[in-house]
Amino acid sequence: MTRLKLGMVGGGQGAFIGGVHRIAARLDGKWDLVAGALSSDPDRAAASAVELGIAPERSYASYEEMAQAEAARPDGIDAVAIVTPNHVHAGPAVAFLKAGINVICDKPLAATAEQAEAIRTAAEASKARFFLTHNYTGYPLMRQARAMIARGALGRLRVIQAEYAQDWLAEDTSNKQADWRTDPAQSGAGAIGDIGTHAFNLLSFVSGLEAEALMAELNSFVDGRRVDDNAHIMLRMAGGARGMLWASQVAVGNENALRLRIYGDKGGL
Amino acid sequence: MTRLKLGMVGGGQGAFIGGVHRIAARLDGKWDLVAGALSSDPDRAAASAVELGIAPERSYASYEEMAQAEAARPDGIDAVAIVTPNHVHAGPAVAFLKAGINVICDKPLAATAEQAEAIRTAAEASKARFFLTHNYTGYPLMRQARAMIARGALGRLRVIQAEYAQDWLAEDTSNKQADWRTDPAQSGAGAIGDIGTHAFNLLSFVSGLEAEALMAELNSFVDGRRVDDNAHIMLRMAGGARGMLWASQVAVGNENALRLRIYGDKGGL
Amino acid sequence: MTRLKLGMVGGGQGAFIGGVHRIAARLDGKWDLVAGALSSDPDRAAASAVELGIAPERSYASYEEMAQAEAARPDGIDAVAIVTPNHVHAGPAVAFLKAGINVICDKPLAATAEQAEAIRTAAEASKARFFLTHNYTGYPLMRQARAMIARGALGRLRVIQAEYAQDWLAEDTSNKQADWRTDPAQSGAGAIGDIGTHAFNLLSFVSGLEAEALMAELNSFVDGRRVDDNAHIMLRMAGGARGMLWASQVAVGNENALRLRIYGDKGGL
Amino acid sequence: MTRLKLGMVGGGQGAFIGGVHRIAARLDGKWDLVAGALSSDPDRAAASAVELGIAPERSYASYEEMAQAEAARPDGIDAVAIVTPNHVHAGPAVAFLKAGINVICDKPLAATAEQAEAIRTAAEASKARFFLTHNYTGYPLMRQARAMIARGALGRLRVIQAEYAQDWLAEDTSNKQADWRTDPAQSGAGAIGDIGTHAFNLLSFVSGLEAEALMAELNSFVDGRRVDDNAHIMLRMAGGARGMLWASQVAVGNENALRLRIYGDKGGL
Repeated sequence: MTRLKLGMVGGGQGAFIGGVHRIAARLDGKWDLVAGALSSDPDRAAASAVELGIAPERSYASYEEMAQAEAARPDGIDAVAIVTPNHVHAGPAVAFLKAGINVICDKPLAATAEQAEAIRTAAEASKARFFLTHNYTGYPLMRQARAMIARGALGRLRVIQAEYAQDWLAEDTSNKQADWRTDPAQSGAGAIGDIGTHAFNLLSFVSGLEAEALMAELNSFVDGRRVDDNAHIMLRMAGGARGMLWASQVAVGNENALRLRIYGDKGGL
Repeated sequence: MTRLKLGMVGGGQGAFIGGVHRIAARLDGKWDLVAGALSSDPDRAAASAVELGIAPERSYASYEEMAQAEAARPDGIDAVAIVTPNHVHAGPAVAFLKAGINVICDKPLAATAEQAEAIRTAAEASKARFFLTHNYTGYPLMRQARAMIARGALGRLRVIQAEYAQDWLAEDTSNKQADWRTDPAQSGAGAIGDIGTHAFNLLSFVSGLEAEALMAELNSFVDGRRVDDNAHIMLRMAGGARGMLWASQVAVGNENALRLRIYGDKGGL
Repeated sequence: MTRLKLGMVGGGQGAFIGGVHRIAARLDGKWDLVAGALSSDPDRAAASAVELGIAPERSYASYEEMAQAEAARPDGIDAVAIVTPNHVHAGPAVAFLKAGINVICDKPLAATAEQAEAIRTAAEASKARFFLTHNYTGYPLMRQARAMIARGALGRLRVIQAEYAQDWLAEDTSNKQADWRTDPAQSGAGAIGDIGTHAFNLLSFVSGLEAEALMAELNSFVDGRRVDDNAHIMLRMAGGARGMLWASQVAVGNENALRLRIYGDKGGL
Repeated sequence: MTRLKLGMVGGGQGAFIGGVHRIAARLDGKWDLVAGALSSDPDRAAASAVELGIAPERSYASYEEMAQAEAARPDGIDAVAIVTPNHVHAGPAVAFLKAGINVICDKPLAATAEQAEAIRTAAEASKARFFLTHNYTGYPLMRQARAMIARGALGRLRVIQAEYAQDWLAEDTSNKQADWRTDPAQSGAGAIGDIGTHAFNLLSFVSGLEAEALMAELNSFVDGRRVDDNAHIMLRMAGGARGMLWASQVAVGNENALRLRIYGDKGGL
């Protein structure tokens, strides 16, 4: 068995999604985490590397340094996982793609359209590959739904109802996770970017249909909030199906409720 | 105990909602059905009256005749239930209101705005009262939700998600119930009028909020259908809350699924 | 339409199940309640009759008097509903059966085996018929389950899990309903008689199988309670199937939870 | 970070629960699988070791050899996971305990009471520790339930309803997993040992109560089956609570349904 070598940008002490990526990477026993630029704070980066068993010489102070150093090592990483806040996706993604290292990037793609375009340009120019982790597409239930639709079990699709409701931002909350997600400069968007992107990706992935047009209303219900915390969207899909998408971080009573319903002329899921 | 005397327009053999009204009227033992214009077909009207124990002299050939005759009797009906297709709501409603007889009318109010205005005019001019049976408002769960919201248990309302999904018109179906409901001249509208009206009424009844603006997309998915069979609506409610409403008669797998969710800054239902 | 004439023993002011029987009798519009011995308290009996629209001369002071008088009238009742506490089932049942009047009796059959035998003897000797209202057998879901099993959809039955859990007697409660149900002289039994009888009847009705042997443990968990408030029973059914029955009035969180699961070699319900 | 060294007995190609243990061991990144006697078939053992990245010199032909060799190595394993069929629990457990190596053993403890006693004797004599993996006790929901009961949230416990229903043995199935589980010599018991042991352990773990007496009926419903495939058990718990346990592998429609309900005088879970 050949094990793959993984690096990580972000995911140091106090982070949230980095740990989730590490657990996922461990499940099949095929990856070893061997390098990292785990925090923009050098002390935290070093301490985090020790905790995770990363050798000191492969704990880097910046992603730029890491990309260059790992590309130069004969035993350099096979891929890097980028698990930073949204506005720090494009920088490392471009750096590693330029260094020829495969990139696994957390969603959403970026905080701005410009950043997204920069990633696309770098990905197209690189021999390495770029992967965006819309993780819910990996759920067996979603794969099953997609396969049933692809083989025509639902017939011609008519209606898609997607929703992703949370309530952890129903009040004016301050903590490491809330702070960057509600700062437009770091997140780029609120509920629509953090969880709406999952619902939007998933409805397209499962139905096999692209959205051709949409009409959205984004609201910020919490006083002083600078990003949307609730999004209502109507969708016109290719082929004539119609859809609705609701993403909310203020739906009190919903810890983390993702729901997808698709109806065709022969069946519903 | 004084029992009230009920008349009925529509609801003869082969009808659907008339029987539901009769069951509801029987539950508390306070009503007797004593008169009717049960069908536009005279033979069916007479046969239906016999089945329901209505005396022959109070089985009428038309609602006009019934309104006049019952108004003239010393033991005339206390109220009439109108359970006809939508385009035959305004005619009998106006006739009985003019005759001074209370009216219980099935929803939706009418098939056109003109008919609705005629009912309003007649109701304002009459000593009798006009009741529209949005029956779901009578459910204890809805009353409880409304009371909780009214006393502030949810705080300031933010988001309302209402839906009413059915699937019985997912194909091009022909039967007595389907035929008039999919004929624009008789129904005035499709899913939005038949069931969307329940969802729209209910969200306002429970939340205590009126819609100030809306944006709707109505679709007819079944080939040849002349009324909408799916409706997606975005709502702006008084006070700033936002909502979505989905009504569908083509959502395969949903026999009759009415669902209302309301979220405020202190709680959700 | 010929309407049937119903009498009632019990069910006066303050009673519980009598009102439920009246609602059920009204649903199809084929019964009129015309006579009653509604309470053992004469004043309450008379006042209750007035409320229910029963003519004063057909409001009786005792069931004995009612049985004789109604049997003698040319327009006497077609059937009597007995809705008294368990220990007052046998008396009126025998009296009306002897008078040739059909009996609809609430469950359980009686408070003692002797009373039950007396009813059987009277029913066998009478031209009238005796009905015991295990009402859950009337639910469409149960009829459907029974039909599926009868036509072999589950194959040969193996396992039956029945339960009926409530919590309204989890504490030492005193009210009209609780008092007689927890008095052995009036109820004859506790949870097993009040609700276990439903579960036992239903499992047999739906499965089509009789119990051949059983092993039961009855407990009284509330201090001072003189009847069982929890029953655990293991069942050996005819044909080899095995079952469990749980009936409880102390299962906090269960308002009224009846559940039946049946498994055969080809399917489960 | 110090990583622990894990060995495994059983769990080679074609096995089921060994892979589950490996996934569980990987989740927190604190274990490395470095040694194994993965199969009683030497070729399969060797091939399995290659797949799992175990060095050839630490892939052993027998658990006896493995226990001795690992105990002698300065870098020997910290613990061994025994994931063999039930009748091969006691042999390796005793061997590793005697060698001073900690043992993580899959449930049930053993196939016979004699084997269980042998493990107890060895565990008591060893400096190493013995762990039995009743994995459901690790679920956060169960820990929460246990903590609530321990702090008195349910009051004095009265009733416990435990069940574990599956259907994969509803027919006479033959495959690697079914064959040993339905062979009395290898499994020691059927549904009661394979899954009833989880329900029994869990109800005691969560309630904090030991069973003082029980009455069980075990049945084999599938023709030719030599172990029980359905178990009904009534329980008398210390302190007076009563319980029922149902374990079944023939409950068609239940893929893997574990359910625990506990009721006290103040609450229910």
